[in-house]
Amino acid sequence: MRLRRKPGTKEALLALVPPLVLEPQDNLGKWQRYFGNTNPIYIELGTGKGRFITTLAQNNPHINYIGLELKEEVLLMGVKKAVEQNLNNIAFIWGNVQELDNYFAPEELARIYINFCDPWPKKRWAKRRLTHRTFLANYRKLLNDQGQIHFKTDNKDLFEFSLNEFVDDKWQLQNITLDLYKNPPEDNIATEYELKFKEKGMPIYRLEALKE
Amino acid sequence: MRLRRKPGTKEALLALVPPLVLEPQDNLGKWQRYFGNTNPIYIELGTGKGRFITTLAQNNPHINYIGLELKEEVLLMGVKKAVEQNLNNIAFIWGNVQELDNYFAPEELARIYINFCDPWPKKRWAKRRLTHRTFLANYRKLLNDQGQIHFKTDNKDLFEFSLNEFVDDKWQLQNITLDLYKNPPEDNIATEYELKFKEKGMPIYRLEALKE
Repeated sequence: MRLRRKPGTKEALLALVPPLVLEPQDNLGKWQRYFGNTNPIYIELGTGKGRFITTLAQNNPHINYIGLELKEEVLLMGVKKAVEQNLNNIAFIWGNVQELDNYFAPEELARIYINFCDPWPKKRWAKRRLTHRTFLANYRKLLNDQGQIHFKTDNKDLFEFSLNEFVDDKWQLQNITLDLYKNPPEDNIATEYELKFKEKGMPIYRLEALKE
Repeated sequence: MRLRRKPGTKEALLALVPPLVLEPQDNLGKWQRYFGNTNPIYIELGTGKGRFITTLAQNNPHINYIGLELKEEVLLMGVKKAVEQNLNNIAFIWGNVQELDNYFAPEELARIYINFCDPWPKKRWAKRRLTHRTFLANYRKLLNDQGQIHFKTDNKDLFEFSLNEFVDDKWQLQNITLDLYKNPPEDNIATEYELKFKEKGMPIYRLEALKE
């Protein structure tokens, strides 16, 4: 659901620094220093309202989480969740996946989560899909040798497209599922979207891709 | 659909030598000699009534095809099709996939087709599925370096299982589809089962796996 732009959102966001990081490019290659530890860095591309990444951060204090989100209205909700939960292992970037190179150095990341991204259904939009091979090549550069991508979607066509992009680009896949809630893994964290799809009984597709 | 055993089927089959090969083990490592040429050998595991493999043989005279089928009633239908079409690039084995090693030498095969095999849905039956990793390891041995497996099924759970078996066993996948008839490839040949599923609008899953 698309939210209307609300006046005052920007001001409310700016009051939440940290965990909102206003100049993420200043931390390029230095995010562990920002967090003050040497824990691995996991990022989520498009946090939406933040349920997924804040729950992970709560459950896994020895991981540093960074969420990217472009739409300020939902970003504000995610950042507020992190503040309310008093989380110190999470940061948010008000930014664009196109700009990842400006935020992170090669091999700085241990994991990338892509959850329910825009399927861009028309063929001429394929390059905008976050699992298009040009994006994958960039993720590969930013991930460390043990790096992984965890990808979930409700969109069958996007999942089919993504499977082929990953295997063509030589990622090692694992734990592929065509119906996540048939045998849900114990540690699955649902996003806000996912909860809705699940209630409707729609299948959720998921895979993990290893850089190797 | 399971056919009743008909008396006289065995005798009718024996009258169709060739293309039925009664002692396939005698051709182990020598199938090109059997066909009298050096064309690549493609096999189908479970020909059913033979529409798929006889159509391929008709369309591709420079490939040698060998079909395996255990159930004599449907095998007879397939062999008859080959005889009626006067095909000389096809052979049939009245045999079991468990016995592949007795029919073929390492690297003797260029392609293996697995179409709508029994999904063996219960977990304790997983080892009987023709895409279980123990079968994949054997196919790998029998395929040459450019060898491929082409796999189709209407069963979503079997396809999910198979995807994971193939990637865990390090096959290079390509042309994965979760709905074959959404964008059917020009050269797709439907099996008898497939025509029924297609008519009902059920999705057909397909993938190609390269030995590498």
